[in-house]
Amino acid sequence: MSKTRVLTGITTTGIPHLGNYAGAIRPAIRASNDPQTESFLFLADYHALIKCQEPERVRESVRAIAATWLACGLDPERVTFYRQTDVPEITELSWVLTTVTAKGLMNRAHAYKAAVQENEEAGGADPDRGITMGLFCYPILMASDILMFNGEKIPVGRDQTQHIEMARDIAQRFNFLFGETFTLPEAVIEESAMVLPGLDGRKMSKSYNNTIPLFESEKKLRKSINKIKTNLLEPGEPKDPDSSALFAIYSAFASPDQIQAMRREFENGIAWGEAKKQVFEFLNEELAPMRETYNGLMDDPVHLDRILQQGAEKARDHATPLMSVVRSKVGIGPIAG
Amino acid sequence: MSKTRVLTGITTTGIPHLGNYAGAIRPAIRASNDPQTESFLFLADYHALIKCQEPERVRESVRAIAATWLACGLDPERVTFYRQTDVPEITELSWVLTTVTAKGLMNRAHAYKAAVQENEEAGGADPDRGITMGLFCYPILMASDILMFNGEKIPVGRDQTQHIEMARDIAQRFNFLFGETFTLPEAVIEESAMVLPGLDGRKMSKSYNNTIPLFESEKKLRKSINKIKTNLLEPGEPKDPDSSALFAIYSAFASPDQIQAMRREFENGIAWGEAKKQVFEFLNEELAPMRETYNGLMDDPVHLDRILQQGAEKARDHATPLMSVVRSKVGIGPIAG
Repeated sequence: MSKTRVLTGITTTGIPHLGNYAGAIRPAIRASNDPQTESFLFLADYHALIKCQEPERVRESVRAIAATWLACGLDPERVTFYRQTDVPEITELSWVLTTVTAKGLMNRAHAYKAAVQENEEAGGADPDRGITMGLFCYPILMASDILMFNGEKIPVGRDQTQHIEMARDIAQRFNFLFGETFTLPEAVIEESAMVLPGLDGRKMSKSYNNTIPLFESEKKLRKSINKIKTNLLEPGEPKDPDSSALFAIYSAFASPDQIQAMRREFENGIAWGEAKKQVFEFLNEELAPMRETYNGLMDDPVHLDRILQQGAEKARDHATPLMSVVRSKVGIGPIAG
Repeated sequence: MSKTRVLTGITTTGIPHLGNYAGAIRPAIRASNDPQTESFLFLADYHALIKCQEPERVRESVRAIAATWLACGLDPERVTFYRQTDVPEITELSWVLTTVTAKGLMNRAHAYKAAVQENEEAGGADPDRGITMGLFCYPILMASDILMFNGEKIPVGRDQTQHIEMARDIAQRFNFLFGETFTLPEAVIEESAMVLPGLDGRKMSKSYNNTIPLFESEKKLRKSINKIKTNLLEPGEPKDPDSSALFAIYSAFASPDQIQAMRREFENGIAWGEAKKQVFEFLNEELAPMRETYNGLMDDPVHLDRILQQGAEKARDHATPLMSVVRSKVGIGPIAG
């Protein structure tokens, strides 16, 4: 039985927060331990350039994300963990795919259409106002990311399934023109991805400015948890765990028995201050050892570079021969053959 | 005084004909000998993929074009003569430029607009019917070709000046966002590029199927010249040199004195058969030594590859450090800096 190849990209424009950990990092690392799968995980820094023209932010994000995934237990020996920009074959393949992709396909991309609609609603004369070719061409780069490694299963949120369909379309077109070359990828929709509430009770998200950074210091973590929005119920008054952001955050990390016990505490009227103290202590205990590893990695960029370079070598062990096949099929490569 | 850097790309989808030689190859090689210039000449095989999905044709074209330019006297020691696909930095830079290019700029490209107009005139529902992303994105790849080597002067036909303006726009946008990086290229419009008539008297062009391949065999060259369209004037009747394709082809290669002599022959009523014989003999004498070199190169693809590889190394001596600067400016590259 051959292993299923799973491929996941992480755009490097932010610093991981608790919501990223519970919703994406932890499940991906668990999945990477499945002996039936072969995981490719990459830092999508070419993609980051589409959204972010602040070099320092891209740089810091790459550093923090690499350190985070490793600190959270990703085993770079077991998976292929690399930085997209360390695999130059990816942009080369992207160009080759560009030549076989219909413009009409890109016209139909949701992200592009949403941007056009926004311009139209704003009443401007140019529907493409402020839209870069990066946004427009991004599904081709993503197809290259996937097809380069013959990725079979691509875990994505529902809003990303169209990109996987586009990668399939592009792969089929290439295979039709030049013979069977690429595996057709399949989206694996993560319906049940855990969504954590943020400080204000809405979904924890950088864009709401309501996040708890995963590896902020113990002192800051305590402060953050104290800031989680609660209601005005006094100590002794029963509290509803199911509408509490604090309870939801706790539940994302605690065992079923611990969750049950906390639920009873809420029903018995635990004071918000006391509940926050317990959640902080619990979370801090969970995170402290990983945070220490994280801080060590953040302080040793040379070591991080080395790990990513080793990952890039593993990735290129796939990418270089595949690109060589692709080049030969389209008619580029040495004249002597 | 620093030298002016001149950059010329040759799309690899055909086999050079006499018109290419007189109009492009010969003047470019002459220009490359100007001690005030530094010439970059490349086989644009990534561009070829936009128009041509026949690998054998791309391969044969690369071989024939490389052999032709060398046989015609291009000195690979003096110029940087390389194959675009041997410089992977070009597609990488192309992606980085993609992220800073406005989609609106590409919407305005003449080649794209012409394709849309054709669809609209055909009355179809989809203005983008049959248009690939290769055609749409091609000005960005061309910008990358130019900016990668800080090309200053780009000799182009009038129909290509827009692409140079786009390369300037893209360079300016990047320089604005990330600091001075790229030289702004200038188009050098070749108003006086020699246009040779083909067998039927129209411009010699692959698309009219009226070409005389530059290095066809002596026997075939004789046949081709015999096929050049003439009129029904008998021997002894004066003939108009200025409306004769045969005379125009001769003039593209002969000295002023020789042209003058042939003009008198025409006026004195030279027979078409005799004129063709003289033109064949003259041309064949011109071409024979180059043809021999060409045939030798065509039979030695390993040697051609070696020359192109050496050119690619020279090209990458520029491309690698520039790409490294670009990566650093946008925030990619080693974490440790």
